[in-house]
Amino acid sequence: MSDTVNRQILLAARPEGAIKTSDFRHGEGPIPQPGENEVLVRNLYLSLDPAMRGWMTDRPSYMPPVALDAPMRGATISRVVASKDPDFAPGDLVRALGGWQDYALVKKEDRLMKIPEGLPVPLTKHLGVLGITGLTAYFGLLDLGTPQEGETVVVSTAAGAVGSIVGQIAKIKGCRVVGLTGSDEKCAWIRDELGYDVAINYKTENIDKALAAACPDGIDVYFDNVGGEILNACLGRINFKGRVVLCGAITQYNATDMPPGPSNYLNLLIRSARMEGFIVTNYMDRAMEGGMQLAQWMGEGKLKSREDVVDGLENAPEAILRLFDGSNQGKLIVRIADE
Amino acid sequence: MSDTVNRQILLAARPEGAIKTSDFRHGEGPIPQPGENEVLVRNLYLSLDPAMRGWMTDRPSYMPPVALDAPMRGATISRVVASKDPDFAPGDLVRALGGWQDYALVKKEDRLMKIPEGLPVPLTKHLGVLGITGLTAYFGLLDLGTPQEGETVVVSTAAGAVGSIVGQIAKIKGCRVVGLTGSDEKCAWIRDELGYDVAINYKTENIDKALAAACPDGIDVYFDNVGGEILNACLGRINFKGRVVLCGAITQYNATDMPPGPSNYLNLLIRSARMEGFIVTNYMDRAMEGGMQLAQWMGEGKLKSREDVVDGLENAPEAILRLFDGSNQGKLIVRIADE
Repeated sequence: MSDTVNRQILLAARPEGAIKTSDFRHGEGPIPQPGENEVLVRNLYLSLDPAMRGWMTDRPSYMPPVALDAPMRGATISRVVASKDPDFAPGDLVRALGGWQDYALVKKEDRLMKIPEGLPVPLTKHLGVLGITGLTAYFGLLDLGTPQEGETVVVSTAAGAVGSIVGQIAKIKGCRVVGLTGSDEKCAWIRDELGYDVAINYKTENIDKALAAACPDGIDVYFDNVGGEILNACLGRINFKGRVVLCGAITQYNATDMPPGPSNYLNLLIRSARMEGFIVTNYMDRAMEGGMQLAQWMGEGKLKSREDVVDGLENAPEAILRLFDGSNQGKLIVRIADE
Repeated sequence: MSDTVNRQILLAARPEGAIKTSDFRHGEGPIPQPGENEVLVRNLYLSLDPAMRGWMTDRPSYMPPVALDAPMRGATISRVVASKDPDFAPGDLVRALGGWQDYALVKKEDRLMKIPEGLPVPLTKHLGVLGITGLTAYFGLLDLGTPQEGETVVVSTAAGAVGSIVGQIAKIKGCRVVGLTGSDEKCAWIRDELGYDVAINYKTENIDKALAAACPDGIDVYFDNVGGEILNACLGRINFKGRVVLCGAITQYNATDMPPGPSNYLNLLIRSARMEGFIVTNYMDRAMEGGMQLAQWMGEGKLKSREDVVDGLENAPEAILRLFDGSNQGKLIVRIADE
């Protein structure tokens, strides 16, 4: 711990439309000292997530926007350096909202949680399948989607961090699972490695026709990460008492004007169907349940995941663009420091 | 029963946009005789409902469209004339899907139900508050809307047959109730007679501003009968874990092109809220529960309703237009024959 400065990546400008690397700038500050009940952590890994686009916009949401010139917010795997919270000691491995920086002062009430040492899995899994990403998939699909054996489940961003877990849980539950993703390589991966019944390349196939062919009995559950045309197409084929789980809307985040909603929402009325949103923090009191189940499935080999790890904090602004152009492969993570 | 012909109103053309009287034509046929398990009924009252617009369109829905040159479908209060179903005898009063005609052959499986004789309420209530209309309000609000004491409930077509009951049930449940309707007379009625806390005239007031003023704590439950701009405005103010109940979309039924959906649907995602449709037939196994509760509230004077009764089957094509121009006052009913 011979660092003397805290490298930070700050929000330089609120993006208009898509994020640009110039919306960030590099900064540095002193390494802070913890006050009462505060913990100083060294960030090791930073999670990059589509939701970050929302945090960069000055609009009310489930979390306040990141302030201009403040370090970007982000979930991290970190190691405790110094602590004035009696529940944390130097050396502890933790999950934190450590942000885009080397060091952070964090508090228990900001989702600071210890990670058990010595689990036989790479640390990065704690930002992916065993972290918020996995819990998002778990609670969104099971609690809101309530998939039943034999039902048809459709997932968008099906090779993405959340989507790939949703699809595999749906398979575990005995569903027919159809995934939409944006390259033939990803299609092959979700079909051949993850066990999706059908993979649709939404960039090269006609979405309506491909869905019609893939879902001859209609759609019982649609897990939406994208909004827009794919959401509308799935609403068009939603079954009686079908469930649409709104987890994200990545096609909408970069819109500068408010795009129209899905015209097929009327099928909710005609088919007694439901469309419901959630954020994973609604389920924090059940995080243990979800985490243990996900870990068990992973141990049984039923839940595969891959991480796309980019080296170096300084590369985070470039890396996050890949979430929106679809070029990431699996959970996107930045390695800030060696374990 | 000296009639020798069965007057009928037939679907002459599928409407483009709004219904026109020329979409109907008068016809007549012989009075049919019941076959095995069939019941011949004389229709006394015919219910006119917004859903009829949907039945006139050749589009898949929860019921097949009415065939061209067939009698229009409709719920009726009827009296049994002849019966080959042992559960029904001549003289019985029944609810039926008797259609726009003097006589109909009906069967038990088509929602044929006896009405107890001698209840101290006008027969027309069985098409309104004690019929499908009341059950629609009851199950839609309570089962999907799940209003809690102190919450804010917003109702569109708040003076209409369904809406006026929704608003009153929400008041019974201890909610703050805001209604949107289309005339000052209707505003006065729902506020002064039905007990709504706020009445908004959507034709003369700015909907967004009026909703902001009427719902300082946001909207917990929105009961939607209209779609379009009002649905979007209510989604704009929906609270965390709010519920949007889709019961109808009268502004959309006459659209010839598919109108865009509500752009504020994204608030479902941001605010963990839900939008869900239903049809009352989903609840037929609980119709008794709903009917008894509605009758009790009516007996206690907590549930007021008014009917707008038009005389003469021949006037039905003209009368149904009033559902769409907002000029009906309460449940719209056609008297076909004397009780």
